[in-house]
Amino acid sequence: MSAKNTTKVLIGGKIVTLCGYESEEYLQQVAAYINRKLAELNDVRGFSRLPAETKYTMLSLNVADDYFKAKKQAEVYEEDLQTKDKELYDLKHELVTLQMKLEKLQKNNRQ
Amino acid sequence: MSAKNTTKVLIGGKIVTLCGYESEEYLQQVAAYINRKLAELNDVRGFSRLPAETKYTMLSLNVADDYFKAKKQAEVYEEDLQTKDKELYDLKHELVTLQMKLEKLQKNNRQ
Repeated sequence: MSAKNTTKVLIGGKIVTLCGYESEEYLQQVAAYINRKLAELNDVRGFSRLPAETKYTMLSLNVADDYFKAKKQAEVYEEDLQTKDKELYDLKHELVTLQMKLEKLQKNNRQ
Repeated sequence: MSAKNTTKVLIGGKIVTLCGYESEEYLQQVAAYINRKLAELNDVRGFSRLPAETKYTMLSLNVADDYFKAKKQAEVYEEDLQTKDKELYDLKHELVTLQMKLEKLQKNNRQ
């Protein structure tokens, strides 16, 4: 079990102290990603004039959108993996059948 | 190109109007997910006493953590897919070689 870390990260220009089992490197990576998302939103016309609460909600929605898209991608890959596993299984079966056929023929030829 | 939709969702008990190309169903799904995350955080001792800004930051960090984990999962599956593609290629090659060997042997036997 890893030890609990306390890490300070900078989010939206404010220092946030995080406490958890994740590495400092990982938490800094997550914070940097949120700051990128914030910067993207700040570039949207009218965003800066929104109430703070709406801004934060938009941020959460944007991050959640990335999450749903990554989750969907993982699901697509998982399905592809299942298809390929089935294909591999069939090919291996075909290969064994062919090998047996070949061995039988070679054996008959030697007799 | 799909038409731009305006959808009202309920996040943290407040109505938020969203405008975008995503379907209403998808936006409601994202909002429901954020509400689940909020409920999880509200169950954490001391969370309710935090300043609103810190609460929102914790929410974004939690959602971003889910995103990073889903992204990592997609990357792992993508690597597995590449390995399986290589395996499939090798097996197909082996199969063709074996088929040719078998055909040659059958042809010789007929002569």
